[in-house]
Amino acid sequence: MPDSIITLTTDFGYKDPFVGIMKGVILSIKHSVNIVDITHLITPQNILEASFVIENSFSFFPRKTIHVVVVDPGVGSVRRPIIVADENYFFVGPDNGVFSCIYRLIENPVVVHITSEQYFLSWRGPTFHGRDIFAPVAAWLSKGIEISNFGVQIYDYVTVQLPDLRKPAENIIDGEVIYIDSFGNLITNISAREIEDLSRVNPDRKPEVVVKGQEAPLKNYYLQATDDRLYSIINSFRYLELFVNKGNASAASGITVGEKVSVILS
Amino acid sequence: MPDSIITLTTDFGYKDPFVGIMKGVILSIKHSVNIVDITHLITPQNILEASFVIENSFSFFPRKTIHVVVVDPGVGSVRRPIIVADENYFFVGPDNGVFSCIYRLIENPVVVHITSEQYFLSWRGPTFHGRDIFAPVAAWLSKGIEISNFGVQIYDYVTVQLPDLRKPAENIIDGEVIYIDSFGNLITNISAREIEDLSRVNPDRKPEVVVKGQEAPLKNYYLQATDDRLYSIINSFRYLELFVNKGNASAASGITVGEKVSVILS
Amino acid sequence: MPDSIITLTTDFGYKDPFVGIMKGVILSIKHSVNIVDITHLITPQNILEASFVIENSFSFFPRKTIHVVVVDPGVGSVRRPIIVADENYFFVGPDNGVFSCIYRLIENPVVVHITSEQYFLSWRGPTFHGRDIFAPVAAWLSKGIEISNFGVQIYDYVTVQLPDLRKPAENIIDGEVIYIDSFGNLITNISAREIEDLSRVNPDRKPEVVVKGQEAPLKNYYLQATDDRLYSIINSFRYLELFVNKGNASAASGITVGEKVSVILS
Repeated sequence: MPDSIITLTTDFGYKDPFVGIMKGVILSIKHSVNIVDITHLITPQNILEASFVIENSFSFFPRKTIHVVVVDPGVGSVRRPIIVADENYFFVGPDNGVFSCIYRLIENPVVVHITSEQYFLSWRGPTFHGRDIFAPVAAWLSKGIEISNFGVQIYDYVTVQLPDLRKPAENIIDGEVIYIDSFGNLITNISAREIEDLSRVNPDRKPEVVVKGQEAPLKNYYLQATDDRLYSIINSFRYLELFVNKGNASAASGITVGEKVSVILS
Repeated sequence: MPDSIITLTTDFGYKDPFVGIMKGVILSIKHSVNIVDITHLITPQNILEASFVIENSFSFFPRKTIHVVVVDPGVGSVRRPIIVADENYFFVGPDNGVFSCIYRLIENPVVVHITSEQYFLSWRGPTFHGRDIFAPVAAWLSKGIEISNFGVQIYDYVTVQLPDLRKPAENIIDGEVIYIDSFGNLITNISAREIEDLSRVNPDRKPEVVVKGQEAPLKNYYLQATDDRLYSIINSFRYLELFVNKGNASAASGITVGEKVSVILS
Repeated sequence: MPDSIITLTTDFGYKDPFVGIMKGVILSIKHSVNIVDITHLITPQNILEASFVIENSFSFFPRKTIHVVVVDPGVGSVRRPIIVADENYFFVGPDNGVFSCIYRLIENPVVVHITSEQYFLSWRGPTFHGRDIFAPVAAWLSKGIEISNFGVQIYDYVTVQLPDLRKPAENIIDGEVIYIDSFGNLITNISAREIEDLSRVNPDRKPEVVVKGQEAPLKNYYLQATDDRLYSIINSFRYLELFVNKGNASAASGITVGEKVSVILS
């Protein structure tokens, strides 16, 4: 059997030994496992951002990969640790909405409230469930322990409000910037599919992307933008993205998360 | 035999290729080894911080893990490269005090001055013993070379002065902040055990944590703090920690490493 | 057969999930592969810096290691994806000059324009060829697919102008700072070999290193500098480097990439 894969997505950063310690705990339980960092620079305690990052990452991993997400402002309180599973993937983390984007995507998720303490670290503290609960549970999952052994299925798992699209008219989609990558590209919640649906209203028209009252013309790849103004593109995650060619769109435009972006078929 | 584990703790940062190169050197000697980063963001040349980080990390890894620590302002000079071993773990690094916290914890450490150059990289430079000495020695250790083959045992290994607790009265412990994590939590050198010992003086009293003349009330988990003032907690490493719930205690309070913290049974 | 090794060098940073996603793609094709990060903090879109970093890193890895370099401002446009190979290593990345330093070092490189789309991700976007082309091609290479299966050999691959040394007189080498490491050390393009050649002109003289009209005396290791002025050293990559002992030379001197440095045999 090939090695299992466990991914880690946290807001722990790279300065402290927290992530390394989680890996030590995993390797103490399951020696032959491939642990992959997705990121540890989720904005501290930003559940929505973590949810967006794991949504766009999980499916590029092999089936049966175990995705651990620890963005956990309620650590040590009554919020529940959970495993989320469909037929292809496992997700392990706190029940605070961090898997909200996953619930939209996977059919019939099985969500289990983790209560079987034999799968926890024997000594536990109040501030680091990544080490004491989530890492060891992921390691035991990777050893093939059935999900039903970890606790009982729940149906009242927590979801957070995701920024919704609005369609004030048949020919308009209003969305917003929901993530800024480290190049400064501004990623919106308007999907390629939404723009395709809009275009069917009048296939002769080209959609116009408007932000802050200005058009950000839609291009097919970055180098098609031949000056340093703001342009837009359907990016590789199939979302509308605003960019400046060879520049930092966020810094250049002052646009940040939450800025309204419209697609108009005029 | 399962793969060996080698961990790396350095002040090399993530921008330069230094850590990647160390991994290349290790993998050139021992192909099947699991290399885990603990951190590469130790404050440059801060031996005490590195010592504290490895103290709080090493025991979460499986037995026989080899912990490499390279914080090495004296690289290229006469300071000695060493291996530290007890029955459970190996530590490899410079003899500059970086293992001071480990010497307090492990019984009867065997410390060997590494002199057997056949285990070094064949070409060596003056500035990068992480690559030329520590990485290859760790790799050879992971192949099962006996520690005695690397050099002779020494007893005059270097320790640095660790910040000590003071007990000016039977009911008072004076300690200090020794580490700030990336959430801004302020970790002190006052252990849970010290506070338990203090409490035995008068079990009817609750210990008060005082910093800068103000009480930082002791809580059991972060969410118990219901406003944005400074609180304290026994953290998951069993040390007293000052925090602001969902905030950055260091930024909010201006407190930094070295600030005095007292626990008083009044 | 031991696991293959694939290294990654990009300007993707550590905040976004891009690097983790590349690893997921690789592991989906080749389950038992050891993926090593060299760095993901190449200055965004700095082809020359990436070329310098991979030049100084690649040879510390075992033979047959596959080095993936993705610094790719032209992503999605007509620039070609390529594999570069000699008898020891493979390199995978865009044909934009990122391998210029490698072409100087390896004899008779075989450069193949990657065109066989069966080795790409089945769905591809315009902005992330690291995920869609370079990661899967590296994974297929690691499975033993012959380089000739990926496309046809080309000879007009792109090289960028590297900063050259000038020798205005028999006893002078003029070079420049080409890289600043995270300690602030200033690494020049003047190699140890050049200085050795210069010294043969008059073996009785010691070379003087001059920057901004001041001498930066040449030392054998960092601790030989006993004050906080600028000194120089032949570093562990066999290049001349300017440093401040236990300090940050770049911050202290204000010197940055491009600053002229001379070695004079007076």
